[in-house]
Amino acid sequence: MATLYSSLAREIVERIEQGLYRPGDRMPGVRILSAQRGVSIATAVAAYRRLEDDGYIEARQRSGFYVRARPHPRVAEPEASAPRVRPSPVTGQELVLQLVKATNTPGIIQLGAAVPDPSYLPTRAIERALSRAARQRLRIMAYEFPPGAPELRRQIARRMAEIGCPVDPDEVVITNGCQEALILALRAVTQPGDVVAIESPTFYGMLQALDSLGLEALEIPTHPRTGLSLEALGLALERWPVKACVAVPNYSNPLGYCMPDEHKRRLVALLKARGIPLIEDDVYGDLGFAQRRPSVCRAIPGADVLYCASFSKTLSSGLRIGWIAPGRHLERVEYLKYVNNLATATVPQLAIADLLESGGYERFLRQVRGDYARAVTRMVDAVTRHFPEGTKITQPEGGFVIWIELPKDIDSFELARRALTEKISIAPGPIFSATQKYRNYIRISCACAWDTRIETALAALGRMIRQETAPVPESRMTTRRDAD
Amino acid sequence: MATLYSSLAREIVERIEQGLYRPGDRMPGVRILSAQRGVSIATAVAAYRRLEDDGYIEARQRSGFYVRARPHPRVAEPEASAPRVRPSPVTGQELVLQLVKATNTPGIIQLGAAVPDPSYLPTRAIERALSRAARQRLRIMAYEFPPGAPELRRQIARRMAEIGCPVDPDEVVITNGCQEALILALRAVTQPGDVVAIESPTFYGMLQALDSLGLEALEIPTHPRTGLSLEALGLALERWPVKACVAVPNYSNPLGYCMPDEHKRRLVALLKARGIPLIEDDVYGDLGFAQRRPSVCRAIPGADVLYCASFSKTLSSGLRIGWIAPGRHLERVEYLKYVNNLATATVPQLAIADLLESGGYERFLRQVRGDYARAVTRMVDAVTRHFPEGTKITQPEGGFVIWIELPKDIDSFELARRALTEKISIAPGPIFSATQKYRNYIRISCACAWDTRIETALAALGRMIRQETAPVPESRMTTRRDAD
Repeated sequence: MATLYSSLAREIVERIEQGLYRPGDRMPGVRILSAQRGVSIATAVAAYRRLEDDGYIEARQRSGFYVRARPHPRVAEPEASAPRVRPSPVTGQELVLQLVKATNTPGIIQLGAAVPDPSYLPTRAIERALSRAARQRLRIMAYEFPPGAPELRRQIARRMAEIGCPVDPDEVVITNGCQEALILALRAVTQPGDVVAIESPTFYGMLQALDSLGLEALEIPTHPRTGLSLEALGLALERWPVKACVAVPNYSNPLGYCMPDEHKRRLVALLKARGIPLIEDDVYGDLGFAQRRPSVCRAIPGADVLYCASFSKTLSSGLRIGWIAPGRHLERVEYLKYVNNLATATVPQLAIADLLESGGYERFLRQVRGDYARAVTRMVDAVTRHFPEGTKITQPEGGFVIWIELPKDIDSFELARRALTEKISIAPGPIFSATQKYRNYIRISCACAWDTRIETALAALGRMIRQETAPVPESRMTTRRDAD
Repeated sequence: MATLYSSLAREIVERIEQGLYRPGDRMPGVRILSAQRGVSIATAVAAYRRLEDDGYIEARQRSGFYVRARPHPRVAEPEASAPRVRPSPVTGQELVLQLVKATNTPGIIQLGAAVPDPSYLPTRAIERALSRAARQRLRIMAYEFPPGAPELRRQIARRMAEIGCPVDPDEVVITNGCQEALILALRAVTQPGDVVAIESPTFYGMLQALDSLGLEALEIPTHPRTGLSLEALGLALERWPVKACVAVPNYSNPLGYCMPDEHKRRLVALLKARGIPLIEDDVYGDLGFAQRRPSVCRAIPGADVLYCASFSKTLSSGLRIGWIAPGRHLERVEYLKYVNNLATATVPQLAIADLLESGGYERFLRQVRGDYARAVTRMVDAVTRHFPEGTKITQPEGGFVIWIELPKDIDSFELARRALTEKISIAPGPIFSATQKYRNYIRISCACAWDTRIETALAALGRMIRQETAPVPESRMTTRRDAD
C-alpha cells in the first residue's frame, strides 16, 4: 500500500534523478515542502526520512537536507542476487584460510582480506593506551572472566546509548572480536543440523562459522542497496524450519548497502512473529559515509536480537576486542564464552576502555569515515578505468569493500590464483556463498595504502580479465572494444 | 610379569619406607648398586628410573639420585576413584560460571579457582615486555592469522625441544589460552554425540567443553598418584565407541599426580592400537616440584597426540596465550582456530615471545616451582590442623591445587554456599565430575597470597565441616572425637 509520504518520496527521487537537485544542493525545508504540496509537516518529514534511508539525501545538523553525492552515477551496479532458496551445507570454505595465509607473503598487494591498512587506524593512540594499560600490573595478570572488564562494558554501553540502542553494561559480553561474538550467538540459538537464513552474498567468516558448527545455510536473495529481500525471506520462513537469521544491516560485507530503517523494522517483525532470533552483525555500523549513524535492529522494541560488533575495523584488528549484547540469551552466551576460552585478554580490554573514555573515538570516526569514503571513490574510479566495460561495481554507503561483477565467463578462483602469482590478493566470489555461487564476482578491499602499486595492480587485474575473456571470439570483440 | 628391575625397585621402596634412606639422602650410585646386587648397570638404572617415575627419588644433575621429600608422610591420601564407567552427558556445569563470578566479590578469600595470585607471577617483566611490544605499532594493529606470531611459535618450539618434545614452529598454533586449545582439539577429532574418555575427577573446563560440544563423557577411574587406570581404560575401550581420550598426565587438576613414564608409553600404545587420538593437556607440566621436568606423551614416537598448553599458570592468566601442537590434525585445527575468532590478540603474543627470548623463563620457573611447592606444603599443613581427623588430602607433585576428601555425609555444594556467605571461595567436588560425583570432596588452590586471613578461613571451613557432620548422632560422636 503506497502511503502519502512514500509517493511524495518517489516523486522527489525522480526530480533528483532528472538532475533538478544536484549532489550538494539543499532540499526545500520541510515547512516549504509541506506548503508546496499541501501535505502535513509530518508527511514531509517522513518523505525526507525515507529518502535519507534510501541514501538519496542526508540531514546536516540545524541546516536541513542535502542531496548526497553518488560518487559514480554512471557506474552500473550488480543486480539483486537470486540464489536458489533451499537449505544447504556450506562447502569450499577450507581453502579460504589458505588464501588468507597467502596474503602474508612479503610485498603482496593486499586487496583481498577486509583488513584496514594501519594508516587508517589510530596507531599512536593505541600504543599509548596499551602502555598505560600495561602499568595496571596486577590487573592485567588476572583473568577478566565473562562478561569482561567492567570499565570497557560501561564504555560500550555508553556508546550504544549514543547510537540509539541503550543496553545495560551487564548485558554486554566482551569477545575476541566480532567473529567470536557471531560464533557464540550461533551456538546459543542453534543445534547442529539447524537451518540458518543468511544474506547472499555474505562474508565468508559467517559461512565458516555455519560450516564448523554443522549448520545449514539458507541463502536469501539480497539487494546491493537495500539488503535482504524481505519478500524472499518471508516465503523461505514459510517453507523451511529456520532457527536463526543472520544479517549485516549496516554496510554489509561484501555488498555495502545500508538497510533502510523501515526494512529493519519489517525484518524484526517478520522474525519475531515466528519466534526466530536475529543475529545482527554491526561491525561496519560506525563506518558510514552519511552524516547520520544508521540505526540498529537491536534497538527496535521487543526485538529478539543478538547484537554483535567489534573495534577491529575502527581501532585495531590485532587487539581482538569485540562484544555481544545477546538480550534474553545472555546467560547462555556468557557460559559459552567462558567455555570457549575462559576470558578475553585483559590488557587490550583496558586499553580500549581507556581510549573510549578519553573521548577521541567520535572525532576519530569522523575522520576515518571520510578517509574510507575517499578510498572507496578512488578505488571505484580506478576499477572503472582498468577493468573491461560491462564491469558492475557496488557503491557502498559505508565500510571499505566493493563487490565487482565481471563478465560471465570469468572464473574468479582462477583469476585470484593468477593474481597471486603477480603478488596481488583479491577475494574470489564463490567464497561468499554457501554453494560457491558468484563465480564471476570478486570483492576488493579499498582500505589499502594508496600508491602507484595499487594502480599497477588494478591494471594487471584488468589485463588478466581481458585475457580470460579473450578465447571466445564474441567476447574477444567486446574485449577489444572495451580496451580502447 | 615382575621384571628384575621392578623387583629391585620394590625392594628399595621398602628400605625407603622403613626409613633406611631418608628424604634428602643420596642413594647408592648405579655402579655400587649393580655390584651390591649382582645385576647389570642397565637394570640398576631401570630400577632407579622406576623409583623416579613413582616419585620416590629424584635425579640431580651429575650428582646421582636422592630420596624425595614427601611433605606429609602421615597425611592420608584419597583412594583411586571408582566412577561407573559408562558414557554420560555432562550435567550441572552451568552453575560453575556463577561460582567463578562470585569469586570476583571484593575481599573474598580465593581458594576456589585454580588461578595463581599475581605474587607468584613475574608482573614487572610482563609489564616491560608489553610496553616493548606496544611500540611495534604497525605490527600490533594487524591480525596475526593462524598459526600465530612466528617469533612466539619459534620460542615455543624451542621450549618444547628443551623438554624433550621437538616440534616444528609451523606445527604450533597459538590459542587464547589452553582452554581454547582443548576446545579446538575436541572439535577437530569429534562430532556431537561422540564419546570421550576422561580422567575422573577432572577439571571442570574440560567437562564444560564436552557439555557445550554435545559430547558424552566416559569417566575412567584415576589414581591420585599414577593417574588414569590403564586397565580400566583398556576395558572401557573394548566396550564403548570412544573417539578421543583427554588426559592431564603431568600434575593433573585436581589430583596433582604425575603419570609415570611407563604409564605414558602404555597409554599412548593402548590408544594408538585403536586409532584413538589423545588430547594431552600439559598446562601444569612446567610446575613440578621434582628436579626433572616430566616427559610428555606427544614426544613418544608414533603417538597421535594433540598437545595443549599455555602460559596462564606460569607467566600470566590475563594475557590469554596458549598453544596446541596437533600433529596430523594441524590443518583442521588451524581452520577451526580461524573460524573461532580469526586470531589471538597480537600484543600478548609479542610480549611473551620477547619474554621467552630474553631467556629468563627457565630461571623464573625454578623459583616459582619452589614457591608453589612451599605453598602446597603450607596449605596441607593448615588443612590437616583445621579440618576434622579422617580428612584425606592429595599430595601433588606439582601445580598448586589439592583435592580433599571430607567425611562421607558432607555436601560440598552446601559447604561452598555457606563458605561464600563468609567470603571464602572453594571448589565443590561434583563440578569435577560429568555426573556430579565427589559430593564429599573439595578442591583448594594453594596459590594464594598467604596471610592470617587464610588460616582464619581454613579454621572457619573446618568449623563448618564439623557442624555439617554434627546432626547425625553417630557422626557427632566421631566428630567430637575428631575435634579434640
